[in-house]
Amino acid sequence: MTEVVIAGIGQTEVGEHWDIGLRDLAYAALQDAVKDSGGLKPQALFVGNMLAPNLSNQAHLGALIADYAGLIGIEAVTVEAAGASGGAAIRQGYLAVKSGMVDVALVLGVEKFTDKIGSDVDAALATASDSDFEAVQGMTPTSQAALLMKRYMHENDVPSNGFAGFALTAHANGAANKNAMFRKAIIPETYAKAEMVSDPLNMFDMAPNADGAAALVLTRRDLLPSNWQNPLVKISGSAASSDTLALHDRKDMLCFETAQISAGKAMNQAGITLDQINFFEYHDAFSIYAALQLEAVGFALKGQGWKLAADGEIGLKGRIPCATMGGMKARGFPGGAAGVYQAVEAATQLRGRAEANQIAGAKTALIQSLGGPASTAVSHILQRMD
Amino acid sequence: MTEVVIAGIGQTEVGEHWDIGLRDLAYAALQDAVKDSGGLKPQALFVGNMLAPNLSNQAHLGALIADYAGLIGIEAVTVEAAGASGGAAIRQGYLAVKSGMVDVALVLGVEKFTDKIGSDVDAALATASDSDFEAVQGMTPTSQAALLMKRYMHENDVPSNGFAGFALTAHANGAANKNAMFRKAIIPETYAKAEMVSDPLNMFDMAPNADGAAALVLTRRDLLPSNWQNPLVKISGSAASSDTLALHDRKDMLCFETAQISAGKAMNQAGITLDQINFFEYHDAFSIYAALQLEAVGFALKGQGWKLAADGEIGLKGRIPCATMGGMKARGFPGGAAGVYQAVEAATQLRGRAEANQIAGAKTALIQSLGGPASTAVSHILQRMD
Repeated sequence: MTEVVIAGIGQTEVGEHWDIGLRDLAYAALQDAVKDSGGLKPQALFVGNMLAPNLSNQAHLGALIADYAGLIGIEAVTVEAAGASGGAAIRQGYLAVKSGMVDVALVLGVEKFTDKIGSDVDAALATASDSDFEAVQGMTPTSQAALLMKRYMHENDVPSNGFAGFALTAHANGAANKNAMFRKAIIPETYAKAEMVSDPLNMFDMAPNADGAAALVLTRRDLLPSNWQNPLVKISGSAASSDTLALHDRKDMLCFETAQISAGKAMNQAGITLDQINFFEYHDAFSIYAALQLEAVGFALKGQGWKLAADGEIGLKGRIPCATMGGMKARGFPGGAAGVYQAVEAATQLRGRAEANQIAGAKTALIQSLGGPASTAVSHILQRMD
Repeated sequence: MTEVVIAGIGQTEVGEHWDIGLRDLAYAALQDAVKDSGGLKPQALFVGNMLAPNLSNQAHLGALIADYAGLIGIEAVTVEAAGASGGAAIRQGYLAVKSGMVDVALVLGVEKFTDKIGSDVDAALATASDSDFEAVQGMTPTSQAALLMKRYMHENDVPSNGFAGFALTAHANGAANKNAMFRKAIIPETYAKAEMVSDPLNMFDMAPNADGAAALVLTRRDLLPSNWQNPLVKISGSAASSDTLALHDRKDMLCFETAQISAGKAMNQAGITLDQINFFEYHDAFSIYAALQLEAVGFALKGQGWKLAADGEIGLKGRIPCATMGGMKARGFPGGAAGVYQAVEAATQLRGRAEANQIAGAKTALIQSLGGPASTAVSHILQRMD
């Protein structure tokens, strides 16, 4: 059976890159990934992007970026599934290599928020929601997450600072990540005093929109250069699932079914059980998403995900380390690139090169990329090959 | 080797559907395709769409449409490559089935132009061009095509009515297609008197933007229902290629290299030569594109593509029939759905069910979907299996 491996990884620093454009960000990450792969020659480019048609007036990123990266002629396409665009691009690259039709696939996640500001960004992000039934009422992903969080806190008797653990962990882990947007640990008082955005969701319950690009080179194991040096990471499980966009169409809005289904399928394909997962890169665009993912995947009972964070169990030395390089909260949320950052960071951990943030002996990771409130979930199992 | 077959096809009428929305169009085409497949159960949905984030304020179409079509839970994603989005979605569906990871894939192309009008549509279409270097100067795909056409006519001494053959053929073929937007043949005088849009490009040198949806069910041959009745069509070749978005970055702007490369690869994979192709569904968003594709693929010498049309060689009984159900000019141009319409129409021909438009004994088709001026080209070879 074809084994799909991650031969190269690349990323830019996440932040507000007012001085460089979308194609430049993309190029930087791609160049790093190809170099890291030992110079493999890509035949296909899968671009995960969420908002460029709205924020940069630029669609057709596949051809644009292939050209700009000096890869003219290769097949190139954009893959979009809102916030899960990065995960979905990995999935398409994986399928392409798995099919035997593509030997070397480049996966790129790229997002440029700073081409527009303020309400334009809110309107663009709202295109991920159901336009006819949600966004048209003025709902944004943030106000929607606040509603979810409020309901969750009510049903599970969560205290007002109950979600602090997610931000504390993210910022502690982001402090040593040189590509993170925020590199300073916070204390419980920081969370407690944070400005309210949409009650009960405060500034530290949401990840900052930011520019960034991350890239992977995927290939078959037998095609690796003979002088291959890096510890090798394979994709042993890959799955995606979809749910309603509109929250009011769900049976139980506090159950992220797609997170459950896609993680289960990916683990099944990899032939592993939950206890074999050494760390989990969740999609913490909002702290409530993180809590619901921990529950959906099975790391916590329903209604108890927040306690895992409150009890320090998601820290680097906890029971199930999460957001190990800062997650979306501290590393930053570069939209359709976020899912590819997860893979780059997980591969760094699995190669044993996460330095101060290293999970000792990490061999297996679960990464999960969400679009909207888990309207799309894409899950991948990454494993170190020894 | 896995044989990927087209088990089901579906389409809506192309036109200005002011009374129904994007999701309704999608549902109609999907329902038809699944029914036509004998009720296969799709596991994945690949949506080809170009403009919904701009024109309908709606991204995240994969999950939205999967839900609306009663397919909740399946994996679903949007694939975008400007005008080639439909072809690119077929390519992703093909790779998914070929990989062995997906048994039954739905491919949907959908576009809804009539959610916005006029300058908003022009601005949206311009996102397919290089925003920083072309669109920002005010260039639209139409004015760009006019520049290409002008240069082509100058270099090849084409008379002022030299491109009439493309529109005449398209409208003749569209007349009997009940899903076509325009169902009336035209005469040479119609073309000669047509209103100029951007000199030398007139009303009949460009396809009308229109709403529509088309769908395919792809599977492996061995998974077909035991009661399978339809003549069977397989995808025997699939390839894509990219070029610069900006025309000024090309060595020779009158050579559509991606059309050449992707068609060559697809034919190579199928193990066929040009003379075995019974008909060609080209991407006649503009008549100049059609001429340049005929040359790039090899049906005409450089500078002579227009003559093939002028000489009636692209008609249903000509040397290489093109736009056999009306093409984009007469069937209409539903953006990211256009490439899927090509496949649905080609499959109809290969099943021998094109009625008045039937190409006698058609066994092999080339379909080619373009993004911008062949900045992306996706080519597929479809063949009847006997």
